[in-house]
Amino acid sequence: MLNFEKLQGTGNDFIIFNAIKDKIPTYSDLAIKVCDRHFGIGADGMIIVDESDIADIKMIFYNADGSEAPMCGNGIRCFAKYVYDNKIITKTSFSVETLGGIMKPELVISNNEVTHVKVNMGSPIFSTTDFPINTTEKDFINKDLEIDGVKYKISSLMIGTIHTVIKVNNLEETEVERIGPLIEKHPLFPLKTNVNFFEIVDEENINLKTWERGAGLTLACGTGATATAIISSILYNTTKTVNIHIDGGTLKIEQTENDVYMTGPAKSICKGVYNF
Amino acid sequence: MLNFEKLQGTGNDFIIFNAIKDKIPTYSDLAIKVCDRHFGIGADGMIIVDESDIADIKMIFYNADGSEAPMCGNGIRCFAKYVYDNKIITKTSFSVETLGGIMKPELVISNNEVTHVKVNMGSPIFSTTDFPINTTEKDFINKDLEIDGVKYKISSLMIGTIHTVIKVNNLEETEVERIGPLIEKHPLFPLKTNVNFFEIVDEENINLKTWERGAGLTLACGTGATATAIISSILYNTTKTVNIHIDGGTLKIEQTENDVYMTGPAKSICKGVYNF
Repeated sequence: MLNFEKLQGTGNDFIIFNAIKDKIPTYSDLAIKVCDRHFGIGADGMIIVDESDIADIKMIFYNADGSEAPMCGNGIRCFAKYVYDNKIITKTSFSVETLGGIMKPELVISNNEVTHVKVNMGSPIFSTTDFPINTTEKDFINKDLEIDGVKYKISSLMIGTIHTVIKVNNLEETEVERIGPLIEKHPLFPLKTNVNFFEIVDEENINLKTWERGAGLTLACGTGATATAIISSILYNTTKTVNIHIDGGTLKIEQTENDVYMTGPAKSICKGVYNF
Repeated sequence: MLNFEKLQGTGNDFIIFNAIKDKIPTYSDLAIKVCDRHFGIGADGMIIVDESDIADIKMIFYNADGSEAPMCGNGIRCFAKYVYDNKIITKTSFSVETLGGIMKPELVISNNEVTHVKVNMGSPIFSTTDFPINTTEKDFINKDLEIDGVKYKISSLMIGTIHTVIKVNNLEETEVERIGPLIEKHPLFPLKTNVNFFEIVDEENINLKTWERGAGLTLACGTGATATAIISSILYNTTKTVNIHIDGGTLKIEQTENDVYMTGPAKSICKGVYNF
């Protein structure tokens, strides 16, 4: 019997265990078991809370397949809500050690409850010498790419991972599942690319669907929302703070001089004991 | 906040609430919400425990889409374990009111814990006038059907729902996902059919994959296992008590003079409180 809590951020769901209080079995095996949607509680990933020597707290993240992952944008929001709601951390802004570096989530609290969390997403990389793309161009913003006889204007950049962003006139009518994988696996991208299709609602609102490299259509891709906000502000004059509406909810992206911040929801679904 | 327990039987998973103790919100809406795999706890169905005027206890069953269902073979095993483990029922054999009639599960207990539950699956109907099949034959046992140029020997019957059973020599090599839907939607079956592909391991063991009408390949179909055990004993002399091995585990089917019984596992995954 192991205490657990299940949380979700824009539909990306996680089971969280507390290694400070409880003795946790082998992480990789546990992740496979607990994330199983039929035989386990069911989730996209498993998060372990532990003590850190170099930050206020440590987040250990495992995918449902039992592999460890450096970081997860939706996951760290859920982690931040969990450690505050469960009084493991009492500050509303704190440092978190992750395999992907130290993150500094800021909590948005309403009626004593964490509703949203703001996370620094780092800064974008535009130089094509600094990410895997087969081109002699210096950057790859607003370039032509022909797919299946149709010409697209695409922009590729690195923000956490590689993203390609494409503005469409009507997102509902866009065949994301057909065109997405064709761009994902295009020879231009030796290590493939995530593909973001967006439409502009108004200067402060964007609708987005992301085709994730290796995963296909997902409910929410935080880095994809960030890449889209950046490109849209450069090419189409949307505001530096913009709401990105995705299938799993809404993410607010704020661009400052040096960094890009993402604010998104985190919600507790259930808590209790798990018979592992 | 609502008390819940999640259980599974051969990989078919359910969230159970207790209406005798707790005030439960509108069932249909709650089922959609709680069964959602990303925004809810996640399950194939929701079960409500309530008092009955005509049986020891009442099981109310909802599918993940919010529709009420008369009965569920894997679900009633989980229900039976839940009411016994939570001391709502103290007998090891009791009557359960369901929309599909009164069921009488029998508990298999080991170390004070319910591990398996035995359920009467009723009796099979072979007469083609009593189930939806377009034929002039009196029954439809071991008949020829050509699909895509290949001849199959198929047997169709009614046990809870309509099932077609086909013996194959090598289940692993059988293209269940290609042939299954072709038979499911064959003009022979005006209301379609479930399709069971099985191979005989020995006279007491059968491997089975079921293509479920409207649902495709699932981890476990209790009525499909029952139909397969019946046909296999008639045509291939497997024993009256047989173990059916499916992707989600093993179901034991026992044929007596008048009825067919299924014994299968039920396991508690987690319990706690749900923030609906």
